[in-house]
Amino acid sequence: MELLTFEQVEKATERLLETGAKVGADSWQQRVKNQTPHCKFGEQGLCCKFCAMGPCRITPKAPKGICGCDAAGIVARNYLNFTASGSATHSDHGREICHTLYQTKEGGNYQVKDPEKLIRIAHEWGVETEGKDIYDLAHEMAELALLEYGKPFGVQRWLKRAPEHTQEIWKKVDIEPRAIDREVSCSLHMTHMGCSSKAEALLKQSLRAGLADGWGGSMCGTEFSDVMFGTPKPVDTTANLGVMEKDMVNIIVHGHDPSLSEMIVFYAQDPELIALAKAEGAKGINVCGVCCTANEVAMRHGIPMAGNFLQQENVVLTGAAEAVVVDVQCIFPALGPLSKCFHTKFITTSPIAQMPDSEFIRFNPENAGENAYNIVKMAVENFKNRKPELVHIPDLKTKATVGYSVEAIKKCLDRVTNSHVDETYTFKPLVECIRSGVLRGAVAIVGCNNPKVRTDEGHIRLMKKFLENDIIVAVTGCAAQAAAKYGLMDKEAKKFCGAGLRRVCTLVDIPPILHMGSCVDISRMMILAAEVSKDSGWNISEIPLLGCAPEWMSQKAVSIGNYVVATGIDTYLGVDPYTAGSKECEEIMQGENGLFKQWVEAKYTVEHDIDKLADVMIEAIEAKRTAIGI
Amino acid sequence: MELLTFEQVEKATERLLETGAKVGADSWQQRVKNQTPHCKFGEQGLCCKFCAMGPCRITPKAPKGICGCDAAGIVARNYLNFTASGSATHSDHGREICHTLYQTKEGGNYQVKDPEKLIRIAHEWGVETEGKDIYDLAHEMAELALLEYGKPFGVQRWLKRAPEHTQEIWKKVDIEPRAIDREVSCSLHMTHMGCSSKAEALLKQSLRAGLADGWGGSMCGTEFSDVMFGTPKPVDTTANLGVMEKDMVNIIVHGHDPSLSEMIVFYAQDPELIALAKAEGAKGINVCGVCCTANEVAMRHGIPMAGNFLQQENVVLTGAAEAVVVDVQCIFPALGPLSKCFHTKFITTSPIAQMPDSEFIRFNPENAGENAYNIVKMAVENFKNRKPELVHIPDLKTKATVGYSVEAIKKCLDRVTNSHVDETYTFKPLVECIRSGVLRGAVAIVGCNNPKVRTDEGHIRLMKKFLENDIIVAVTGCAAQAAAKYGLMDKEAKKFCGAGLRRVCTLVDIPPILHMGSCVDISRMMILAAEVSKDSGWNISEIPLLGCAPEWMSQKAVSIGNYVVATGIDTYLGVDPYTAGSKECEEIMQGENGLFKQWVEAKYTVEHDIDKLADVMIEAIEAKRTAIGI
Repeated sequence: MELLTFEQVEKATERLLETGAKVGADSWQQRVKNQTPHCKFGEQGLCCKFCAMGPCRITPKAPKGICGCDAAGIVARNYLNFTASGSATHSDHGREICHTLYQTKEGGNYQVKDPEKLIRIAHEWGVETEGKDIYDLAHEMAELALLEYGKPFGVQRWLKRAPEHTQEIWKKVDIEPRAIDREVSCSLHMTHMGCSSKAEALLKQSLRAGLADGWGGSMCGTEFSDVMFGTPKPVDTTANLGVMEKDMVNIIVHGHDPSLSEMIVFYAQDPELIALAKAEGAKGINVCGVCCTANEVAMRHGIPMAGNFLQQENVVLTGAAEAVVVDVQCIFPALGPLSKCFHTKFITTSPIAQMPDSEFIRFNPENAGENAYNIVKMAVENFKNRKPELVHIPDLKTKATVGYSVEAIKKCLDRVTNSHVDETYTFKPLVECIRSGVLRGAVAIVGCNNPKVRTDEGHIRLMKKFLENDIIVAVTGCAAQAAAKYGLMDKEAKKFCGAGLRRVCTLVDIPPILHMGSCVDISRMMILAAEVSKDSGWNISEIPLLGCAPEWMSQKAVSIGNYVVATGIDTYLGVDPYTAGSKECEEIMQGENGLFKQWVEAKYTVEHDIDKLADVMIEAIEAKRTAIGI
Repeated sequence: MELLTFEQVEKATERLLETGAKVGADSWQQRVKNQTPHCKFGEQGLCCKFCAMGPCRITPKAPKGICGCDAAGIVARNYLNFTASGSATHSDHGREICHTLYQTKEGGNYQVKDPEKLIRIAHEWGVETEGKDIYDLAHEMAELALLEYGKPFGVQRWLKRAPEHTQEIWKKVDIEPRAIDREVSCSLHMTHMGCSSKAEALLKQSLRAGLADGWGGSMCGTEFSDVMFGTPKPVDTTANLGVMEKDMVNIIVHGHDPSLSEMIVFYAQDPELIALAKAEGAKGINVCGVCCTANEVAMRHGIPMAGNFLQQENVVLTGAAEAVVVDVQCIFPALGPLSKCFHTKFITTSPIAQMPDSEFIRFNPENAGENAYNIVKMAVENFKNRKPELVHIPDLKTKATVGYSVEAIKKCLDRVTNSHVDETYTFKPLVECIRSGVLRGAVAIVGCNNPKVRTDEGHIRLMKKFLENDIIVAVTGCAAQAAAKYGLMDKEAKKFCGAGLRRVCTLVDIPPILHMGSCVDISRMMILAAEVSKDSGWNISEIPLLGCAPEWMSQKAVSIGNYVVATGIDTYLGVDPYTAGSKECEEIMQGENGLFKQWVEAKYTVEHDIDKLADVMIEAIEAKRTAIGI
């Protein structure tokens, strides 16, 4: 096997944009040109719109806003608002999952597929399970989980999963998240005109709001998705635009919440609808995923992944998408007008995400089956409306093995465990590989695409560098799809690894890049870090483990960054989080001895140059090894 | 009596600014100059910073953001984010009140001062009160109220206070607020990159997020503040900067939450501390309020009101403020550096509102008494540090009667009720005055100051015009203080009224401007509107009643505007809510037959010219009268 090159992928995109030009379609590439250069005040976080006296902008001649807030206060307010939005977004996704869990029933649209996991969590939460009907338990747990969003007293239940040392830090620094939504509201209260203007206080709350996501809402989302849809296990799939099928009805599922995509996947297998597809002249029905939805259905069903964030318009530009069915987050509003240039039906389903030029079919647990059936049918009936002269599916398709939940990784590690003498189902084999130096460490690469970085280059170049240096990589979200799109999630990609990692891949039978899921599933990475800490005796901040988001763009990514840092994991960004306008804020967040480091033993590093980024990260991993004497 | 003139007040400010110049102090007047002109994109709502691909700005040549969002989507996203922040802020204040209620105890720092009101609310909520200790009941009610912020299911309890017709509208339009914080989080989810870009959906959620404030968090704040600190009754006080006393220790309480100010007021009356003040050479201790805190303590204790939002720096510029003690919201960060130019201690007390150059004394129900004592003592001991050459208190002081809670107004109206034949304690006498035309209608004037409007002129000119036209005016927040500062809350101000209103003032013994409290107390106005509707048979939207915020500046004000409109009351703004960039949004919010009007029977009007504003409002009142045939 060979990896795809950036040039191959970009050439394919150019060809698609030609089709777009023919039909008068707009494109993000063009819109980026129109929007460049960006406002410097906004980019630096120096524009304040939190009240109607302004907007105010900080300059050397106007060093303070009308209220008297300085650059540090304004930058930190913007950062906290950005974080709170991300935390609210992830957590609200988690909330929907909990509400869906509350609606599960025997034989219903949604069922409990992993009862064992539900029972395990119930025990963790001190809930009696003995002799209880699994659906009664599901409803009880759903209600408890929903209360995590709004309980009047106490802190998040999931915090107890962290190592003692981490829990102590959170308590001492006073960043244990209380009710999830309370942290969101409290953050907005702090950024309100005439509340906090002290950068330190605002940035500390950013950590807390982030933790409310990663160790709160996102963890609810991940864990209860597993309960309902099954905990991911390794599964083979394919990736990149070539997964679309010229002769089949292509249904693109795009967004985040598996409650929608699971139903679409289910009805796409309905014999009656497949028969209808054949009657319409197609060979069958092909569901492909985009963005995190792709991760969700790939991990659980091996559904192919058509692409990540900046590939979403390409899917329509193939002229072969009968329907793009979306729920929430990261969906270009541009898909509406773009679909109108083709025969594609653009179907929105969530009241949270309503877009112009879409057909809105409101989706909820009660009508999910019926609506999913109708959506698939609508797509099938739309096959005949294709304009053959516009159809072009690029010949780009890779193999990938996905589905590495924490549970799955532990099972894989059992392959190198001697069950007669060793404890099984732990991370100890991984710890031993790191301790011995066979693996130098691990990096979690996550996050989006962003036109500020050549698409996927940040992800791919970092990954290749880490693999060569025997650093194992875990991925989620659009970073995961970048890896898959280029071929790095193929088990054969071990040939691009250093000798140590290559050997591990062979023995454990894994690809060198572990697909851990969607963006909410970064909570899986937190659990992994916690378990490695417990299995190694190292504090999380001591593990040769780093986080990285080289091409991030969303508010969720900043929320994630904050909880990853707050968990003790140094985090590297390839795109600036709108904080460059304040040296004080940068020192708090990025300083070698800044407040973040002092509070939670980790910090941010921002580096736009991908090669430099790889180098400093490899150095950091080696430094962590040295510090713990391995 | 004569009213103060703008020139008198401005001359006094100029004199104080001279002192400021002497000590090298900055001023908002100077910062406004530095920040003018404002960014046009921001002012029109056309700047989008919801992800890190941008910031994007809409122009004719760049009509869409990078994601494809158009002007309407961007303006509406900004508007919803602004609203959600305001709603979160008010509601978080209400939450603090509920937590304080939960801490009440016999003989404690906080007690139940209006048990009758607590019991009334308990009955409303279906809580058994018979034979229950009042503090047990308080704690039970506090916990229920706190659950309104995060309950997994159902809608706000307070909604049931609205007339049937209003409740039906909310249900039909699907804007009944669920848990308060959920509406905040849900709003941020909607504005996240790739979620909603349909203006209609975003603006509808703005109404819901607003209702979560006015008929949720703010109502909790108001009602349980009354329970703990007493329901306001008419009380005489004084207003404007002249309330500061040259020979006394002046303690300025500023912010919003009465939990702080009540304690300061209490300890300022402590004989031991008064004796200490005398020992320090002062004649005593004088507590004065600024902003909504002023409203809270004036309404319950007759504490003088030193000024409103844009007067906060003046208080320090007198050189006679020993301490400025603040909690949350609308506090200029400028007060820190400004206080340093004088002997003034600037004391912050809330983790929500931390500011540079302040002394932070964390305040909570457990330590409230002790901390308040220490703060008062610190102020007393600071008296000797005054610089006499800098002391100048302007000779501006008016009389005011404040404290018109809904309960108080009904009691006042009993004065014109014949208890032998009429039902007492209702709004029927007011309804009769309106029906007969003795009063033409009512206007609620609320909101802030904003440098975009000549300070207080918006408030005062409107008020005078309405009084002349027999329109009774109810006020809260900085609008209330504007009225008080200029003398319009003096009962003698009835002489500025038309014959009808003047007669009503005489018979009912009220000033023509009714002080209904702080900004969270706009919930009182909602209750009033609901009761008038029930007592008249008119739907709220039919009552000749309008809302107006001529000089608003805060996110809270927009949240308020949304719930006032959503309650069916046409609302008039003197400052643009950053929506001018989208005709589509303006049509939805302001159109005579726009969606707001269709949904909730009310809409916004934005008018910068105060005289025109008065004219269109008077016309609107007359039109409402005509429509119901009175």
